[in-house]
Amino acid sequence: MNGAECLLRTLVASGVDTCFMNPGTSEMQFVSALDRVPGMRGVLGLFEGVCSGAADGYARMTGRPAATLLHLGPGLANGLANFHNARKARSPVISIVGQHSTEHLRQDAPLTADIEGLARPVSGYVRTVGRAEDMGREAAAAVEAARAAPGQVATLIVPADFSWSEAGEPACARPPAERPRPRPERIRDAAAILRRSEPAGLLLGGSTLLAAGFEPAARLAAAGVRVFGYRNGARYQQGGGRMAPPRLPYFPEAAEAALAGLRHLLLVECAAPVSFFGYPGRRSQVAPVDCAIHELASVEEDGAAALQALGEELGWPPAASPDARMPLPEWPRDAALTPDSIGRVLAHLLPDDAMVSDETVSSGEPIWRHLASGPAHDLLPVAGGSIGQGLPVAVGAAVACPDRKVTALESDGSGLYTPQALWTMARERLDVIVVILGNRRYRILDIEMRRTGAGEVGPRANDMMDLRRPDVDWVKLSEGLGVEASRARTVEEFAERLRVGVRQSGPVLIEAMME
Amino acid sequence: MNGAECLLRTLVASGVDTCFMNPGTSEMQFVSALDRVPGMRGVLGLFEGVCSGAADGYARMTGRPAATLLHLGPGLANGLANFHNARKARSPVISIVGQHSTEHLRQDAPLTADIEGLARPVSGYVRTVGRAEDMGREAAAAVEAARAAPGQVATLIVPADFSWSEAGEPACARPPAERPRPRPERIRDAAAILRRSEPAGLLLGGSTLLAAGFEPAARLAAAGVRVFGYRNGARYQQGGGRMAPPRLPYFPEAAEAALAGLRHLLLVECAAPVSFFGYPGRRSQVAPVDCAIHELASVEEDGAAALQALGEELGWPPAASPDARMPLPEWPRDAALTPDSIGRVLAHLLPDDAMVSDETVSSGEPIWRHLASGPAHDLLPVAGGSIGQGLPVAVGAAVACPDRKVTALESDGSGLYTPQALWTMARERLDVIVVILGNRRYRILDIEMRRTGAGEVGPRANDMMDLRRPDVDWVKLSEGLGVEASRARTVEEFAERLRVGVRQSGPVLIEAMME
Repeated sequence: MNGAECLLRTLVASGVDTCFMNPGTSEMQFVSALDRVPGMRGVLGLFEGVCSGAADGYARMTGRPAATLLHLGPGLANGLANFHNARKARSPVISIVGQHSTEHLRQDAPLTADIEGLARPVSGYVRTVGRAEDMGREAAAAVEAARAAPGQVATLIVPADFSWSEAGEPACARPPAERPRPRPERIRDAAAILRRSEPAGLLLGGSTLLAAGFEPAARLAAAGVRVFGYRNGARYQQGGGRMAPPRLPYFPEAAEAALAGLRHLLLVECAAPVSFFGYPGRRSQVAPVDCAIHELASVEEDGAAALQALGEELGWPPAASPDARMPLPEWPRDAALTPDSIGRVLAHLLPDDAMVSDETVSSGEPIWRHLASGPAHDLLPVAGGSIGQGLPVAVGAAVACPDRKVTALESDGSGLYTPQALWTMARERLDVIVVILGNRRYRILDIEMRRTGAGEVGPRANDMMDLRRPDVDWVKLSEGLGVEASRARTVEEFAERLRVGVRQSGPVLIEAMME
Repeated sequence: MNGAECLLRTLVASGVDTCFMNPGTSEMQFVSALDRVPGMRGVLGLFEGVCSGAADGYARMTGRPAATLLHLGPGLANGLANFHNARKARSPVISIVGQHSTEHLRQDAPLTADIEGLARPVSGYVRTVGRAEDMGREAAAAVEAARAAPGQVATLIVPADFSWSEAGEPACARPPAERPRPRPERIRDAAAILRRSEPAGLLLGGSTLLAAGFEPAARLAAAGVRVFGYRNGARYQQGGGRMAPPRLPYFPEAAEAALAGLRHLLLVECAAPVSFFGYPGRRSQVAPVDCAIHELASVEEDGAAALQALGEELGWPPAASPDARMPLPEWPRDAALTPDSIGRVLAHLLPDDAMVSDETVSSGEPIWRHLASGPAHDLLPVAGGSIGQGLPVAVGAAVACPDRKVTALESDGSGLYTPQALWTMARERLDVIVVILGNRRYRILDIEMRRTGAGEVGPRANDMMDLRRPDVDWVKLSEGLGVEASRARTVEEFAERLRVGVRQSGPVLIEAMME
């Protein structure tokens, strides 16, 4: 069989069954092989950032890698911003990039570019296939690399001639290893710290932001340890009465206030907390200056097991099964659409077990506050801070979990980086409700302009942050890309559109006009 | 003054007066300085690829660099595909990328990425500012680097704290040096070859694809030298009776046929001709195996001067002022919209001195053939083969030459990589007619599928090349982004819409439904 078929068969044999793709000439053999190899679902994106973001969303929800298939250096380049988010989310992804044939690569053809150089900043693993007969082995190695704990983007560059040449038999990746358990001395040291009864906190990241991490954390919380959620995680399980830890706030003053008084902070599958941006005259670290930072479990290690072992080492009584059911927020009294009223409505109307792809930027905090008292859901925020992932991650989550509803909370600024994702939602009939939070502005920049000391916003600066002139008509944009859409100007209109979206299946977009 | 203002003043003092931008927090000081520094036009793009492509189009039409301002690594990443095209077009561009403050960069904040690593594959020059007080000097050096013949992307990475700190006085870039003239021995050697009267050809690239190159080339052509245009140039002046050299065809068989019989090929500001892609069992080089390749002028050198010197060295009689006025093509007899009929209508109706941003992919050849017999125009094709530049290059050309009409010939597949450019056209009231050549398919891939030996297109492969399900409604998409739009299904409808677009100013989109 030729190299493309060998590659595809190796992926399928290794449990990779979904490929988000935007192929070109150098990937034609792979596309052709889709009809000969059962078991691989190809999902077309009209822009590469849709593919890389979808693979990220898929990995966050399944823990398994999808493949992406992109065309040469420029195709990869268009996928890099969302691969950056995948890297920060520690999502396993197999990024397959077609390359010119080896003879052609020696010419300086128009599309020739340094693909390895482009891939390296976002990838934990980068390889170019060197011979057709290595295809199976290389593909299996890439799958293994993507799945190495905690997960990473593994890039495999495939010269076209190795796709069309005889490549021998496919291979199969070894099953992923169990995540390493934290070293016992880490547990003993942490226990010694907590026994001192100095103010101590836990910062939960990675897999401990899922329900499995909550029970062992609650045991420590019951004894007075303060528990926080890492700000920039990949996936948060919350709502439905689960005692999800509060996420650290975005702005450093609020994050510092949350952590104030701590003398010790134990990190679980995350890095020490820092502000999102640096500001004049302000530290980047947000834990108190005299707070000692300790790593309980690294990002590679099994944090839930570490929390469990720590509780046992301390011998503190197990917490009663934590039930943090909060009353639903009051239905908004005012009819105006604001982040607060939208959050209240969502808490009331989201279906149970929803997935929420979140790219709300400046509107987020009030929405999250209300969501946490709503039904059980998975929240998928922008792990790497690169906007333009909200709609693509929704695509990937919907492909990963077709029986669950996705709500994509999207800002009107951020949504315009990858609106092409709407077309893939329509094509695949994905069960996604897109909510566009329309404020017609890069609103966050108003705040950041002041914070960075850049002073008052003059008219020319204002023009670089203002999204009016012309107003984007999201209803037409969405319909143009095949997704039915409507506009809501009041709470009742928004609630009605949301109810309809929840009842029906397939994608729908609601433009919530906030002013 | 602070670093951002110093940077801006240095750019303006160095003759850089346009900045295509999509800024974020780390660029706020630069944005704020727009109101204190007169002479810099900020043009907002909703996606970074619009900015990089616009800077490329601007440079192709003016020969001068614009700046781009992008946000950190992921913002740059989104601009890379069109910077790839700019690199291949040898367009001068000053790519300014904000970076975290130096303290913040030591933390692993979410948006931290290897910006230099991302920039290198597309840039001829990459620098990170090391101290605030170097800002003026570094900015001037970046301008000089961008303008170094023949032109390149110069990337300057600016840490946020150097933007908000005191930076001293601005600097000013030295004026660009004259392009080096080719060495005399090259001219003598070339003359010796042409005197042998063996079949010889000239391949014109770079600046010799503009009118200034035609007269000295015509002198050689009159004596029997065959003259060709490099396939992947940045800008072609043609039409209006100018004797523009025929561009080498896309597919290698046709390119080989064009060059068949040549024993010598002299390269002028271009590389040896190769096919766009490599194919099984086929050479990449398209000149005959026994054709000797000689460089008359390198891409850095002044090719028109070399052609002039060669004509003088040979002492051949100067050609009569070349007039290659061809009759206009017949108005299409059939009412169906096809690339052929669209090309005929364009040849009749384009205004004189138009700029044509061309991203027609599979529809191009018949259109170009007719355009060449139409009015004088500048054709701006996809120099680096990375699709998604057609609309952004049209933005840049329109900003560069506001008194000239732009026609963007865009495929319905390619146009979906950067549709956000429409919004910038609307905001800036740019004089652009966008023609979407709708065939609802990645049509070129049908051809490439066969050519790469991938065989028949099965149903699953077909699904990865088919843009129906759902059909994109370009009229709604365009109106959603603020550009008035209409659909044409016949030649007469298309001609009528085009006439209206030519008469009015400001952007308009025509979706030409080809089947």
